[in-house]
Amino acid sequence: MPRIDGRGPDQLRSIKITPGFQPYAEGSVLIEQGNTRVAVSVSMEERVPQFLKNTGTGWVTAEYAMLPRATSTRTQRESVQGKLSGRGQEIQRLVGRSLRAVTDLSALGERSFVVDCDVLHADAGTRTAAITGGYIALFIAFEKLRRLGVIKQMPLRTQVAAVSVAVNRGNILLDPCFEEDCSAESDFNLVMNGNGEFIEVQGTAEKKAFSKTVLDGVLDLAEAGIRRLFEIQLEAVKSL
Amino acid sequence: MPRIDGRGPDQLRSIKITPGFQPYAEGSVLIEQGNTRVAVSVSMEERVPQFLKNTGTGWVTAEYAMLPRATSTRTQRESVQGKLSGRGQEIQRLVGRSLRAVTDLSALGERSFVVDCDVLHADAGTRTAAITGGYIALFIAFEKLRRLGVIKQMPLRTQVAAVSVAVNRGNILLDPCFEEDCSAESDFNLVMNGNGEFIEVQGTAEKKAFSKTVLDGVLDLAEAGIRRLFEIQLEAVKSL
Amino acid sequence: MPRIDGRGPDQLRSIKITPGFQPYAEGSVLIEQGNTRVAVSVSMEERVPQFLKNTGTGWVTAEYAMLPRATSTRTQRESVQGKLSGRGQEIQRLVGRSLRAVTDLSALGERSFVVDCDVLHADAGTRTAAITGGYIALFIAFEKLRRLGVIKQMPLRTQVAAVSVAVNRGNILLDPCFEEDCSAESDFNLVMNGNGEFIEVQGTAEKKAFSKTVLDGVLDLAEAGIRRLFEIQLEAVKSL
Amino acid sequence: MPRIDGRGPDQLRSIKITPGFQPYAEGSVLIEQGNTRVAVSVSMEERVPQFLKNTGTGWVTAEYAMLPRATSTRTQRESVQGKLSGRGQEIQRLVGRSLRAVTDLSALGERSFVVDCDVLHADAGTRTAAITGGYIALFIAFEKLRRLGVIKQMPLRTQVAAVSVAVNRGNILLDPCFEEDCSAESDFNLVMNGNGEFIEVQGTAEKKAFSKTVLDGVLDLAEAGIRRLFEIQLEAVKSL
Amino acid sequence: MPRIDGRGPDQLRSIKITPGFQPYAEGSVLIEQGNTRVAVSVSMEERVPQFLKNTGTGWVTAEYAMLPRATSTRTQRESVQGKLSGRGQEIQRLVGRSLRAVTDLSALGERSFVVDCDVLHADAGTRTAAITGGYIALFIAFEKLRRLGVIKQMPLRTQVAAVSVAVNRGNILLDPCFEEDCSAESDFNLVMNGNGEFIEVQGTAEKKAFSKTVLDGVLDLAEAGIRRLFEIQLEAVKSL
Amino acid sequence: MPRIDGRGPDQLRSIKITPGFQPYAEGSVLIEQGNTRVAVSVSMEERVPQFLKNTGTGWVTAEYAMLPRATSTRTQRESVQGKLSGRGQEIQRLVGRSLRAVTDLSALGERSFVVDCDVLHADAGTRTAAITGGYIALFIAFEKLRRLGVIKQMPLRTQVAAVSVAVNRGNILLDPCFEEDCSAESDFNLVMNGNGEFIEVQGTAEKKAFSKTVLDGVLDLAEAGIRRLFEIQLEAVKSL
Repeated sequence: MPRIDGRGPDQLRSIKITPGFQPYAEGSVLIEQGNTRVAVSVSMEERVPQFLKNTGTGWVTAEYAMLPRATSTRTQRESVQGKLSGRGQEIQRLVGRSLRAVTDLSALGERSFVVDCDVLHADAGTRTAAITGGYIALFIAFEKLRRLGVIKQMPLRTQVAAVSVAVNRGNILLDPCFEEDCSAESDFNLVMNGNGEFIEVQGTAEKKAFSKTVLDGVLDLAEAGIRRLFEIQLEAVKSL
Repeated sequence: MPRIDGRGPDQLRSIKITPGFQPYAEGSVLIEQGNTRVAVSVSMEERVPQFLKNTGTGWVTAEYAMLPRATSTRTQRESVQGKLSGRGQEIQRLVGRSLRAVTDLSALGERSFVVDCDVLHADAGTRTAAITGGYIALFIAFEKLRRLGVIKQMPLRTQVAAVSVAVNRGNILLDPCFEEDCSAESDFNLVMNGNGEFIEVQGTAEKKAFSKTVLDGVLDLAEAGIRRLFEIQLEAVKSL
Repeated sequence: MPRIDGRGPDQLRSIKITPGFQPYAEGSVLIEQGNTRVAVSVSMEERVPQFLKNTGTGWVTAEYAMLPRATSTRTQRESVQGKLSGRGQEIQRLVGRSLRAVTDLSALGERSFVVDCDVLHADAGTRTAAITGGYIALFIAFEKLRRLGVIKQMPLRTQVAAVSVAVNRGNILLDPCFEEDCSAESDFNLVMNGNGEFIEVQGTAEKKAFSKTVLDGVLDLAEAGIRRLFEIQLEAVKSL
Repeated sequence: MPRIDGRGPDQLRSIKITPGFQPYAEGSVLIEQGNTRVAVSVSMEERVPQFLKNTGTGWVTAEYAMLPRATSTRTQRESVQGKLSGRGQEIQRLVGRSLRAVTDLSALGERSFVVDCDVLHADAGTRTAAITGGYIALFIAFEKLRRLGVIKQMPLRTQVAAVSVAVNRGNILLDPCFEEDCSAESDFNLVMNGNGEFIEVQGTAEKKAFSKTVLDGVLDLAEAGIRRLFEIQLEAVKSL
Repeated sequence: MPRIDGRGPDQLRSIKITPGFQPYAEGSVLIEQGNTRVAVSVSMEERVPQFLKNTGTGWVTAEYAMLPRATSTRTQRESVQGKLSGRGQEIQRLVGRSLRAVTDLSALGERSFVVDCDVLHADAGTRTAAITGGYIALFIAFEKLRRLGVIKQMPLRTQVAAVSVAVNRGNILLDPCFEEDCSAESDFNLVMNGNGEFIEVQGTAEKKAFSKTVLDGVLDLAEAGIRRLFEIQLEAVKSL
Repeated sequence: MPRIDGRGPDQLRSIKITPGFQPYAEGSVLIEQGNTRVAVSVSMEERVPQFLKNTGTGWVTAEYAMLPRATSTRTQRESVQGKLSGRGQEIQRLVGRSLRAVTDLSALGERSFVVDCDVLHADAGTRTAAITGGYIALFIAFEKLRRLGVIKQMPLRTQVAAVSVAVNRGNILLDPCFEEDCSAESDFNLVMNGNGEFIEVQGTAEKKAFSKTVLDGVLDLAEAGIRRLFEIQLEAVKSL
């Protein structure tokens, strides 16, 4: 069964990386995955959460938001609602956790790195694009600070990237676009490190529960996709 | 390697179900899983979210909170902070999604069922206990309303239950208690329906990424545990 | 005129005290007064309000909330509303004031004791049960800390307990249940210390103003009830 | 023992009533009791709380606030804090309750009357002045609306007024000023209707518990003071 | 064309200044401009905003609010809405900026002066009255503190006052009242210092854009009005 | 005196317009003015503010925000602060007012058009760029809806554009960049319609009050700059 945009089931959308999209930031990137566009910036702050004070250890955290018209109908600003949406919080917790999993926090000193992920246009896969792009933005920021002598060595121990997978009328589809995502029976987000191990596995039955066999198929497809993302990440930072 | 409380790796903690714990509710249960205690109540409301108005379809949603001293150090009330925590929102979204996955929403009429999950004492596994207990409380509420003629037939299509699994020094442990959970390398929450299919799979590398082999081991253990929970659920509602 | 539950006008409902209901807390109790159930826990925190800094003096404060379905129809969570209800704040101010009135704050050191009162089931009289149970939970916490050497001597100078009284068709009724409370013409909450002196007298004309004669009758009944509560408190802590 | 301002123990401070202080309002008054100054305005709104819809019955409610520098040190605005203070809510609930107790709500039609009480200068006794002045402002508003034919008859069934009383070194003092209030051992607010019956009795042991004998003395003094306030109220509205 | 209240186009409303309106404040004034009444108080606080810490420099800031019934229909309290209105914030930023423009902040020491502007009755021109009155209240506060030796010299370098101007059917009208303001085609607020220079020029086309010629006419009228306000200010503080 | 970026005093920065930047929106544009980048989108909503209900008239409103790292140091998200900043509200009120001033609201039907202005990178002049770009985005949206028959005729009666001007060491500089803006003595925002009339004039003395002569110079420079912006706007929409 051909996909809506002609891709094969195991094919990522085309990906474009624009480093330095937000020039004030210590590191930044615009990641475009198909029509999905996420601006990711990294800001260093000379403070850490309460529980890390006087430990010599730093922190990496993420914030995630969408422009109101990143979505097909306008989404009210969280600042107008006066609170973060549950979905947004869930996503930013996932992004932060995934990036911390590959960072040597003790190499940061008592500093926080805030990874801001702002969705300019949402065509599915924004949270996984934020993780994949977040790695690049962090790498750029850390490399700059390492050269400036602010940190002594690259704190990233390995790569991290993520994809989503959808099951649609029984077909397992890598990196679904919005239409594929909307009609999916079940929906997966997978985060993997450079050693091919899982950092996060999330599978949700949206319309239909799924078997172990389906899950295995999802994980295979995800792994192949993430290995391709690792190459794209390396390409993006090789000229630094 | 013996577990801290002497259980085998594939052994659930002892479970006690007290139906009718909150007598005003349409259905309620106190679920005790080891030392974890969660009060679950179901309230029917004659309104639905905006997107369901005039569709004839109902809704099931969950809210999750902890008493301030359900935790080893006091947790500030969300009402004092003026907002829900990210963790709490993530959990209540999971509980709501899991219960909706086994409910025929069109059999509810245009009504909402709010499943309140309040943790009296937290010794790990509160979200999975909330799902397992939530099924029982919903069953009680629906059965009562069916007998009263408010709804025509039982809207639950199958059972749903959940367990957590931890990987600890390479050992895969079913239904970890707080100490086991704190020191876990990775942490899993699995939700399954009565047909043995997954509704939700969540795996997080807390300290160490995990392989496909470990994930397979986790899923096997979880399935066995959940099948035991299904029996306990049936036992709890058989005398209705 | 017989009461709805067969009690005499001057008779308390049956009371059950379960110490240690929330094991993580420094002191805790479940107080059941008829069908009313309130979980009270005491948490010590190593900080004081701004106005007590560097005074060597401590503080006792209370927070009060209800489970959403502690009430006959579901009450929206204050965390969802984003603010405390006026009623809740009024009650927690009363509970805090009453407990401070019998505590030697200078014996606490610069520490705060937060008395959390969470209503599991509300059948009237929750605020007075919170005070009566709060005394026990505080006693347990202070006694434990005294033995640990954290505080030098028992800071409680005397007992404190509370009851409500309702006037219903001209009858003065001690410790009314929900039905009696709803239909009351006027409603009283009385807090007394171990010396038989008043700490708080609150009388409100719900449907009908009341005379000095009625007030005198109310105070007599309250005093007798509170003396009985003092005995129950002593019984609860005698084996510590 | 002479009082700080030379009054006898049973003497009110001098009271000045300025009707029409806020000309846009349906009724308004500036009440000055000693140095305490409270602006009270009544606004009619063509809506009622949810629970009164389609009952034909109206509502009276109060809001209470202080100018930031009504107090000896500046109080942060509640709008800046983003929430009402507990004290403020407690007071506005008391004022609303007291005024409703003398109002025939069914004579209002389905309308709300909001009684705004804004303290321009606080020298103790602001909540009782708000009640005493609130009666006058309501009377003015109702009388105007009655003449306009909006309401058919005066909905006020009787008068209502309030005073505070302090116990200071054993002396019972009517209508204490700020210094007397601060150093009081116990503190009382009494609300009475035109028939000499109590609408609200509130006594709080600030520094020292109080006996029944003291309470009796307080009530006697309060009654005499309130009778004098009734005369002042009548004087204020006699020329309408 | 005669104005609604008989004034000439270049005529201010009558102005009354009552110093000491809020006696607790370091400086205060009630400014009445026609029917508009604004209470302005100045409070000194021994702290400065973060960006001024350890600079030896102080700060002047303003807060602006209206009593709910300062307006012809009741305005909901910002404390009930849980946030400041956009209009209110805009005004208080203007007032603060205008007063800082004439204050030598380095003469204050590390202290903040909060200028609270509370509108008792609004008949247009409240923000400009707040600036004109704010200067007087600041002068009173500073002069008192200078005499007490808290500050060494008067920090006000020159006067500041403000007026509004409306264009109504082509007529340029100084200091419009509410009716004139409502029907204005365009609306101006002008703030000037004692040297006749502008501190703020704000012109807004409410119903009709305006030409450079109109703007010139507005500025001429404003300057004449502000010069008259400077005299009134001097009169108000001359007897200090 | 040459400018920091080599421009003449009366020279705009280079401007680039990218229509369709947010494809889901009814109309959208990315406006780049020098390094300042603002994404503007227009969303149609089938509802109007309360005061326009049943009038047949529509509304245009604006919202303004910045990405956290649009600024040289990270700005905390307004959603995390739980409220809009005063500056942000002031700007969005200005943008909304300016766009409404050239729109025939009665031609919209009872619909709202929300103009979202999100700053991707801030190098001064973001609010004026939002107005200039907002006109284009509105034009695109209205033209699309006119062709679809949703609205009958183009509701824009004339163009609107805006520039800022700074006075820096006595030099009047059109369209200042961040460095010029920071060190400015006074700062102006001017909004003009296609007939060369003013819609808004805002001048603020940041460090130094300004004379009428300076203001005249500012207005001349602004007018020339805005006329150039009108040409750029026409160019951007001519191929629609």
